[in-house]
Amino acid sequence: MKVGIVGAGAVGRAVADLAPEYGHSVVALADSGSAAIDPDGLDPETVLARKEGGDPLGAADPNDALDASYDVLVEATPTTLGDAEPGFSHVEQALARDRHAVLANKGPVAERYGDLREFEANSRGQVRFEATVAGAIPVLSVIDDLGTGNVTAVRGILNGTANFVLSRMAAEGLAYEHVLAEAQDLGVAEADPAFDVQGTDAALKCVILANVLAGGDRDGDDGNGGNDTDSDTDDGAIDNDADADGSSLREPYTLADATVEGIEGIPPSALELAGEDGRTIRLIGEVSRGRVRVGPRLVPEHGPLAVGGTQNTLQLETRHAGRLNLSGRGAGGPETATAVLADVGRLTR
Amino acid sequence: MKVGIVGAGAVGRAVADLAPEYGHSVVALADSGSAAIDPDGLDPETVLARKEGGDPLGAADPNDALDASYDVLVEATPTTLGDAEPGFSHVEQALARDRHAVLANKGPVAERYGDLREFEANSRGQVRFEATVAGAIPVLSVIDDLGTGNVTAVRGILNGTANFVLSRMAAEGLAYEHVLAEAQDLGVAEADPAFDVQGTDAALKCVILANVLAGGDRDGDDGNGGNDTDSDTDDGAIDNDADADGSSLREPYTLADATVEGIEGIPPSALELAGEDGRTIRLIGEVSRGRVRVGPRLVPEHGPLAVGGTQNTLQLETRHAGRLNLSGRGAGGPETATAVLADVGRLTR
Repeated sequence: MKVGIVGAGAVGRAVADLAPEYGHSVVALADSGSAAIDPDGLDPETVLARKEGGDPLGAADPNDALDASYDVLVEATPTTLGDAEPGFSHVEQALARDRHAVLANKGPVAERYGDLREFEANSRGQVRFEATVAGAIPVLSVIDDLGTGNVTAVRGILNGTANFVLSRMAAEGLAYEHVLAEAQDLGVAEADPAFDVQGTDAALKCVILANVLAGGDRDGDDGNGGNDTDSDTDDGAIDNDADADGSSLREPYTLADATVEGIEGIPPSALELAGEDGRTIRLIGEVSRGRVRVGPRLVPEHGPLAVGGTQNTLQLETRHAGRLNLSGRGAGGPETATAVLADVGRLTR
Repeated sequence: MKVGIVGAGAVGRAVADLAPEYGHSVVALADSGSAAIDPDGLDPETVLARKEGGDPLGAADPNDALDASYDVLVEATPTTLGDAEPGFSHVEQALARDRHAVLANKGPVAERYGDLREFEANSRGQVRFEATVAGAIPVLSVIDDLGTGNVTAVRGILNGTANFVLSRMAAEGLAYEHVLAEAQDLGVAEADPAFDVQGTDAALKCVILANVLAGGDRDGDDGNGGNDTDSDTDDGAIDNDADADGSSLREPYTLADATVEGIEGIPPSALELAGEDGRTIRLIGEVSRGRVRVGPRLVPEHGPLAVGGTQNTLQLETRHAGRLNLSGRGAGGPETATAVLADVGRLTR
């Protein structure tokens, strides 16, 4: 496949770096300042070395990358909320040209899922977004395989920064502010950590999961916590492809539907108390029966939900196959690029 | 898809039962005594009720099921070693008719991988076998997504019976014979438990994983434990589709290549000693650098490899995405049927 990449942060750069290894060529790579474009395929190493040296990626305008001769556009610009721009327009442009779009950017998928599916329905291109949830953990692909109607609930740890802070607080008995400063020193937390520690990032991922589980269709979910997933599947087929059918969309979930609480108010004494009971506190995201929630929860200290450090973990509850646990690295350039390239690989099959 | 099912044990019956929910119709279902066949689709409930009542499934000869009007044949007869018959011939016949084959039967995949890929290469049908490794855990699909060349090693617990016995021995300080008898009472262990407790079943799954990771090609693996996976990927593209290319096959792995040790000789005192050190003993299968091994290993008591009861777990080591842990139910009718139906779903995409 010929790959165009918009966004040259850690993920975009890693996609460019690894794409040749997966048999793909990179025909365009853009950051906010410039773009390198070559219909015959760039040499990612050379282009990335320019950026590393402080030079522009290439001579072209960033927007020209959107018109390049790619089969699939990888959208890896920073996540924005609300209208999810400029990421959304990048994807829109690729679909309008009947090209595929693979997103690492959560914004368009969490905030404008309906629009995304509508544009996809009118395009010969497909939209995929494995990289937007839990980095290297292929949870969307697993849900797809299990059958969306077979999965009744998903819960887990979807933010490595918050998990690092809580793990360290529990292990060392340290205060939140202390551990956060340490995490910032280590580069595990951003200078402005609000997006991670207030639960917004985890909530966006839960919203994406909710839309996937619902097939984008909230019909019958009138906010009473009803069991529309159950009644859907009682009615008939488990629709593996429901989320590819833009025509059935009705009121997808957005961040506004999520109940979100962060970890800022947790005192070391709460973790100590939990520990005395063989438990610990983790920031858990939950998607179930039409509800999307993120907040601190007590979990068994040695259970599958209590992963340590910056790991992510997911539990899928299924109707026919019991509970499935997945854990691994939820962030990082190469880790997330692996998910992007898995999506690109799926487009070819 | 129109599905034909050969084998009406727990897995075959569950596939028949669940297929309609996934949007497929069952046109044939055979056990060793008879077959029910209807080109317009059977009513699985009616057919299965006949078997439950002690009557034949249907009026047809079992072999007639192989000639039925299916798009995909599900092979769910018991695992046999060596020539892997009659399972292998069932699959051969489906491929000769240019139909797909999905296996729940480990025998043909572990013992005759090369033949399987060769027949597939000469057919318009595809072969899939997610259900042969770790039941409900979609490990082959995840390896496929990560890129076979990106996965450098797989280890894990692949036999629920052995894990149940070791977990109980560790938790209760009981002797092997005592716990085995208990497991037999509970239906967790067979009357003849050799296949499970001696490691053969786990080894077959490891052989299948080894063949998938190697793309069926052992070129350069001359038994010196060499790093052919690494050198393969240094050479060029990570080949997501290597295992679909029957022409590149050379000496696939079989059970004869596996070093296998069971759990029969483990005394309670060994588990006690391990426990004093924060560890426990599990029957671990490992596939790495051209080696296939199954045997009892010390693992951290609260680590991801120490799942309890009849659970299965897998750790994938990757070059670009760190370590990925998957755990869940490794056996059971509906659980394994979910994996079969995931394969059927993938054939349609």
